[in-house]
Amino acid sequence: MITKYRTKDSAGQAASGSYGASRRPNQRTNYHRSNTLSQNQGLDKLRVIVLGGLEEVGRNMTILEYGREIIIIDMGLQFPEEDMLGIDYIIPNTDYLTGKEDWIKGVVITHGHYDHIGAIAHLMGKLKNPPMFMGKLTAGLVEKKVKEHPQCPRLKITRIEEDSKIQLGKNFRLEFLRVNHSIPDCFAAIVHTPIGSVMHTGDFKIDYSPVNDKPADLQRIAQVGSQGLLLLMADSTDSTHPGYQVSESTIGDEIGRLFEKIDGRIIIGTFASQVNRIQKIFSLAEKFGRKIYLQGRSMNDNVEIAKQIGYMKFDAKTIINDSELRHIPDNQVIILGTGAQGENGAFLMKVVNNEHRVVKIKPGDTIIFSSSVIPGNERSIQSLKDQIVRQGGKVIHYEMMDVHAGGHAKQEDLKLMMRLLKPKYFMPIEGNHYMLQAHAELAQQVGIPSNNIFVADNGQVVTLQRQGHEIVGQLTKEKVNTDYVMVDGLGVGDVSDIVLRDRKTMAEDGMIVVIATIDSKTGDPIGNPDIISRGFIYMKDNKDLIQDTRMRIKKIVKETDFLANPIGGHGFNDDDQLKNKIRADVSQFLFNKTKRRPMVLPVVIKV
Amino acid sequence: MITKYRTKDSAGQAASGSYGASRRPNQRTNYHRSNTLSQNQGLDKLRVIVLGGLEEVGRNMTILEYGREIIIIDMGLQFPEEDMLGIDYIIPNTDYLTGKEDWIKGVVITHGHYDHIGAIAHLMGKLKNPPMFMGKLTAGLVEKKVKEHPQCPRLKITRIEEDSKIQLGKNFRLEFLRVNHSIPDCFAAIVHTPIGSVMHTGDFKIDYSPVNDKPADLQRIAQVGSQGLLLLMADSTDSTHPGYQVSESTIGDEIGRLFEKIDGRIIIGTFASQVNRIQKIFSLAEKFGRKIYLQGRSMNDNVEIAKQIGYMKFDAKTIINDSELRHIPDNQVIILGTGAQGENGAFLMKVVNNEHRVVKIKPGDTIIFSSSVIPGNERSIQSLKDQIVRQGGKVIHYEMMDVHAGGHAKQEDLKLMMRLLKPKYFMPIEGNHYMLQAHAELAQQVGIPSNNIFVADNGQVVTLQRQGHEIVGQLTKEKVNTDYVMVDGLGVGDVSDIVLRDRKTMAEDGMIVVIATIDSKTGDPIGNPDIISRGFIYMKDNKDLIQDTRMRIKKIVKETDFLANPIGGHGFNDDDQLKNKIRADVSQFLFNKTKRRPMVLPVVIKV
Repeated sequence: MITKYRTKDSAGQAASGSYGASRRPNQRTNYHRSNTLSQNQGLDKLRVIVLGGLEEVGRNMTILEYGREIIIIDMGLQFPEEDMLGIDYIIPNTDYLTGKEDWIKGVVITHGHYDHIGAIAHLMGKLKNPPMFMGKLTAGLVEKKVKEHPQCPRLKITRIEEDSKIQLGKNFRLEFLRVNHSIPDCFAAIVHTPIGSVMHTGDFKIDYSPVNDKPADLQRIAQVGSQGLLLLMADSTDSTHPGYQVSESTIGDEIGRLFEKIDGRIIIGTFASQVNRIQKIFSLAEKFGRKIYLQGRSMNDNVEIAKQIGYMKFDAKTIINDSELRHIPDNQVIILGTGAQGENGAFLMKVVNNEHRVVKIKPGDTIIFSSSVIPGNERSIQSLKDQIVRQGGKVIHYEMMDVHAGGHAKQEDLKLMMRLLKPKYFMPIEGNHYMLQAHAELAQQVGIPSNNIFVADNGQVVTLQRQGHEIVGQLTKEKVNTDYVMVDGLGVGDVSDIVLRDRKTMAEDGMIVVIATIDSKTGDPIGNPDIISRGFIYMKDNKDLIQDTRMRIKKIVKETDFLANPIGGHGFNDDDQLKNKIRADVSQFLFNKTKRRPMVLPVVIKV
Repeated sequence: MITKYRTKDSAGQAASGSYGASRRPNQRTNYHRSNTLSQNQGLDKLRVIVLGGLEEVGRNMTILEYGREIIIIDMGLQFPEEDMLGIDYIIPNTDYLTGKEDWIKGVVITHGHYDHIGAIAHLMGKLKNPPMFMGKLTAGLVEKKVKEHPQCPRLKITRIEEDSKIQLGKNFRLEFLRVNHSIPDCFAAIVHTPIGSVMHTGDFKIDYSPVNDKPADLQRIAQVGSQGLLLLMADSTDSTHPGYQVSESTIGDEIGRLFEKIDGRIIIGTFASQVNRIQKIFSLAEKFGRKIYLQGRSMNDNVEIAKQIGYMKFDAKTIINDSELRHIPDNQVIILGTGAQGENGAFLMKVVNNEHRVVKIKPGDTIIFSSSVIPGNERSIQSLKDQIVRQGGKVIHYEMMDVHAGGHAKQEDLKLMMRLLKPKYFMPIEGNHYMLQAHAELAQQVGIPSNNIFVADNGQVVTLQRQGHEIVGQLTKEKVNTDYVMVDGLGVGDVSDIVLRDRKTMAEDGMIVVIATIDSKTGDPIGNPDIISRGFIYMKDNKDLIQDTRMRIKKIVKETDFLANPIGGHGFNDDDQLKNKIRADVSQFLFNKTKRRPMVLPVVIKV
């Protein structure tokens, strides 16, 4: 059943409508459907599959499938693990959708963070570019992002608001609930299906007094709950953290109090996606008579997008350029940029490395790190702070003062959400396995029976189906393929385990190429074997070792009886036996001498 | 002036004595000294140099020099930064001591952690094996450690106690103060010199009720202060943390309360050096009628050493072997091992990877992580917890409950130390630069004038000398060599920046060797160039790319006019021009095609 996307909404308007429902008469569709059902029992089953975002944080992508219709929630990327050398990022494996592209009625994006939008550019073409639904800031960020990927088709994006109601195909009716997070325009998706409603929270926290954003609508959440929620899928990122998340307005107040005390320049590092935080800083700047020097490409892009759609409001004169920065007094300056995680190439890093064309740290500067530490970045951040302090700056980080509120609901918030919604079934998402498990324990504490809680793995299928008068959910043993799809440069999925293993070997101990030239008539070595070494030892300082290695290779060549195994061809790479012998012998020799294990690459040339 | 070490003390006894003082008559020495003074003003200056442990945490080593005498405090290693691929660790650079080996009167080791003892095996031979002074547990650990290094000479270790008094050379009189930390037997060193006393705290916290260890002697600390302290050098590790450090006994209580609630097996991961924590667990085991299955080589070694010297006390029957473990009920079992940082090869990792010969996680097991997270290990620990939860275990970490007390004084503790000691000069040590700076600010808060505080870099010389009636301290501009000395396998200091850069390139994008064979008479290419690629792309899946690369190389060879630049020799590596051309062209071509930058290694063979 091929359905077509009918575009009704002009971009920028809230959407309410019907998408992807068959154009054909109902009879035909019904016939088709019941026909299929008789061939394939279980099409009236709701299948819920999370392709990424369980087992680890990142590359979030959820599939809801009913009948022969699918909707997708989020398409994120995941940053590589430490042993994935040279990999840019990982995207969800969509093998399961191969052959089912036409079933996909729509893609909902909950918010604009990379772990929810980063795979769009790679996947939308492959999935036949179904219609997409997202908030307007998210849309701005997605459109900006996919421009870097010429292979991505022109996306068909519909902007949603909290009152959007959308029919997708025959089986899915979508509503949206505004939630709070560390970026504006976050929506939880409520998906009404023929057997009940599913809510997917996206990333969320509950903030009664958010900055520059509407608070999560608790009344409506309760209303959704009172209408009966079949399945809740909820963010587990902070499920191991007791208590309540801090409100963004508290943070704003805290930063405001800092501003009162600081006489010199204020330099603030934060995430470019923290649009609300950035708005707060603009408001404070205007209140305290300071100007903002805005730095970092993503920071400028995001402020521009957010201002265009009305998510940020400030006097255009608040932003100053290079020459204005040079001329106004330090106590009227705020420098706002990226790089608070110590990222190479980001604004703060350029400044401390003396690579920024205008800004240098000087005594009197106060540098505020307004972002939490992403695990894995600790050392880079330490080194960044070191350099700042060394250059005379004063560092204020969240360790010392609460200048950052996290974006995720903590334990008490999570319990509140479940109390308001009272779902029949619960599935923790977005977290490492132990965070999911911790979230499951909270669910039990608020009265959800453990049998109704599904702690799944990536790709593990959850089914919900009618049995008599009841809808019965099950965490099945079925698991779809979720093997890593790694993106490295232009390559998607072409970096194999072998390639990674080789990178690791060379990263640890380097490599050595040994080139033996052999007289093809006599089998004798010609001249001295040549050796190229990289990342192993500095050859000039290790002449003896290199010379000994050469002698060993010569000896191996001499001992090998070529005439017994004559070799034809042009003389390259034919003699695996000799190469294996050289590899084994040289590896062992070098290990004994150095306790290092470089990769040994023998090249045999016959002339 | 060559002095000899006179060994008076049998190992294991507390030391009081005189070491390294000249055997010659005083006149001769005095003459010698004043003679030198006239040649070299300033020998009556105390020079304080920290070779490592500033700028970053680790490889602690401090030099105190007066006249022609030197004492060294600690000889630690530092674990490599993220960009030091394949490096085992870094040790202090002792170039400054070259030629001054005979001046070294002794080495004091404050405690037995690797960042204070890890370079001993590499340096003692080079420094002519001066006498060493340390607590008895430290001595046990050092002797164990250096056994792995046959090149290390037989150390001359004297065990110290809190009442040890040692004269080293003519100028140094040593006393020791017991402090608390996360390993027993920690001493602060008090060094009396002709111009005043210096105190080096080592790593410390203040614990009024330590477990299995004596509390820091606050009265004696105050007494040292009241006698006038010229310079305090103090641990800055937790100087950015407000408040007080938690007492080890609180932790013990907390773990005890956990034990009461747990029915199944208890599996505890902690640092092998946490001897006091381990003793506490042994005591709790005996109290609760549980047996301990002790795992991890370092864990077993340390318990053995600590028991031998009387630092641990437990019934030998408390430790059980494999077969006993199999036969006693789960609620009588504690499994205690290493690997709480997610280290590869450590006990916990082996268990979750199903590589341990006996222990597997099963439902009912409670796994207690009793160690803080070392920055950089977050992801490994997350993955370890994930696997445990997945295998049915329950995880308790310090995030959820205070099962770990840090080993370092926090801000209020640091201020207490300074209030008790009232030093004239203060030098924060052991911390990244911004921690040193934070410690310096605390010092100002307790009344030390900022001019009397020295925030130094590694190798930056601090001098203290008499001027009239005063001793004047100064942070000089002199800086001794502290370049990294990297240990990689058997190599010490032989891994250069070039080698590291090559490792990094190959780690990111791999490498490709291109081999062009050329007819030396005509300059024409013979056959197809051969290509070996590792860590770049999987060649079998990229035949077109490889073929295109071959064609480009052939073309470059053809276009190069060899006859204009005839080349002699055996035909290898002579033609740098051609190789550079191939390297540049192939690099650019592969980058355009893949957006990756593998290392390109051209080999040109003329036949």
